[in-house]
Amino acid sequence: MKPELANVKACVFDTFGTVVDWRSSVIAEAGSWGKAKGLNIDWVEFTDRWRLGYLPAMDQVRKGQIPWTNLDDLNRMTLEELLKQYKIEGLSEEEKTNWAQVWRRLKPWPDSVEGLGRLKKKCIISPLSNGNVALMTNLAKFGGLPWDVILAPDLVKHYKPDREMYLSAPFYLDLKPEEVMMCAAHVFDLRAARDCGLRTGFIYRPNEYGGGPIGVPDEAKPGDFDVVAVSMIDLAQQMGT
Amino acid sequence: MKPELANVKACVFDTFGTVVDWRSSVIAEAGSWGKAKGLNIDWVEFTDRWRLGYLPAMDQVRKGQIPWTNLDDLNRMTLEELLKQYKIEGLSEEEKTNWAQVWRRLKPWPDSVEGLGRLKKKCIISPLSNGNVALMTNLAKFGGLPWDVILAPDLVKHYKPDREMYLSAPFYLDLKPEEVMMCAAHVFDLRAARDCGLRTGFIYRPNEYGGGPIGVPDEAKPGDFDVVAVSMIDLAQQMGT
Repeated sequence: MKPELANVKACVFDTFGTVVDWRSSVIAEAGSWGKAKGLNIDWVEFTDRWRLGYLPAMDQVRKGQIPWTNLDDLNRMTLEELLKQYKIEGLSEEEKTNWAQVWRRLKPWPDSVEGLGRLKKKCIISPLSNGNVALMTNLAKFGGLPWDVILAPDLVKHYKPDREMYLSAPFYLDLKPEEVMMCAAHVFDLRAARDCGLRTGFIYRPNEYGGGPIGVPDEAKPGDFDVVAVSMIDLAQQMGT
Repeated sequence: MKPELANVKACVFDTFGTVVDWRSSVIAEAGSWGKAKGLNIDWVEFTDRWRLGYLPAMDQVRKGQIPWTNLDDLNRMTLEELLKQYKIEGLSEEEKTNWAQVWRRLKPWPDSVEGLGRLKKKCIISPLSNGNVALMTNLAKFGGLPWDVILAPDLVKHYKPDREMYLSAPFYLDLKPEEVMMCAAHVFDLRAARDCGLRTGFIYRPNEYGGGPIGVPDEAKPGDFDVVAVSMIDLAQQMGT
């Protein structure tokens, strides 16, 4: 292990894409539900559009255009628009809530639970995602993610990449910024965390976007971040656990 | 299981006295430390005095006499007074911090980890103690407490028995108050939670105060609360898990 990592006391994780495979999980559940409902819809496209609504919805909050709204509710807002676009009608309130909460039921990547379990022996592990406490807690129950604590944007009413969100980790954990390592598959997230003094760990997730229109997976070279790993288990090994 | 408990989706726990045995843990660590330092002090009395400083310190915050201060820092303030009273001098800053954080290193009661593990299969489990996030997270690491999430007073800047603290559990977990059960060995805590619409589970902890001057353990009769249990395992069994 690199000597500068010896003082890391907490690893905090981006979650959607980094820890869980949101895309294939949402496509699968949407497909089953659509089949049961007899709907003929391209659920891959539907899922990608839902995900594409994520940043603009958060940006409305970040720019103060709408008051603080957590991710469960932003997911619901985007869903309502999609239901109109796809002319899906007649859903009950309960069905829509359950639908919006599909983001609480996403499968971990195959290496996530084992890698997190190893890291948990060495340091505090927490999500540092844009998902709210309820969403992240239920997601952890669903996938068996062994978090020690749930840090979330509804505690500080800021979304990443706002500084307040990164700095909330050392603040609530009573640590120095350099004792906290932000781990993510997304370079923008790690750069923003580094600007706040946190250590950084990159995890390569080549299948996050499935070749769809959302984006190309980020890559990193050794030395771009404090740790550059190809999986959660690789990250744990590089952290000496 | 009682039918009204079928909808409980989260159990939240008072921790000092209910989940962990603070008194014998602090006495033991203080004794070892004092021996190493060659100090001749009654550590049982010292520990009880430290604990007696807890409520007045929190009340200063609750009444607005001092700004928001978390429990780690209140413990440190009370420790400083005790060090003067006992004429313990010459401690380094690091020693005093480590000392104040003995409250992060308390042993669970023998049934706590197993009982919480069982409850975790059925519902979300979280502390709802007056300990801050960092204290509670480290305490869980120390004792192997398998919390799903850490709810804490520094999220809402209120101490129990303020309503804001009890209502923070359904708020952050996106549940109705009656879907959350407050579990504690202390009747005042359960009564305050019930006034906020939470379900209540009493756990009898006859040895919390060790016959010392702090108090007499609370007792409860069947029917006083939604669940009246003699241990964490009994509580889990009564919750059907």
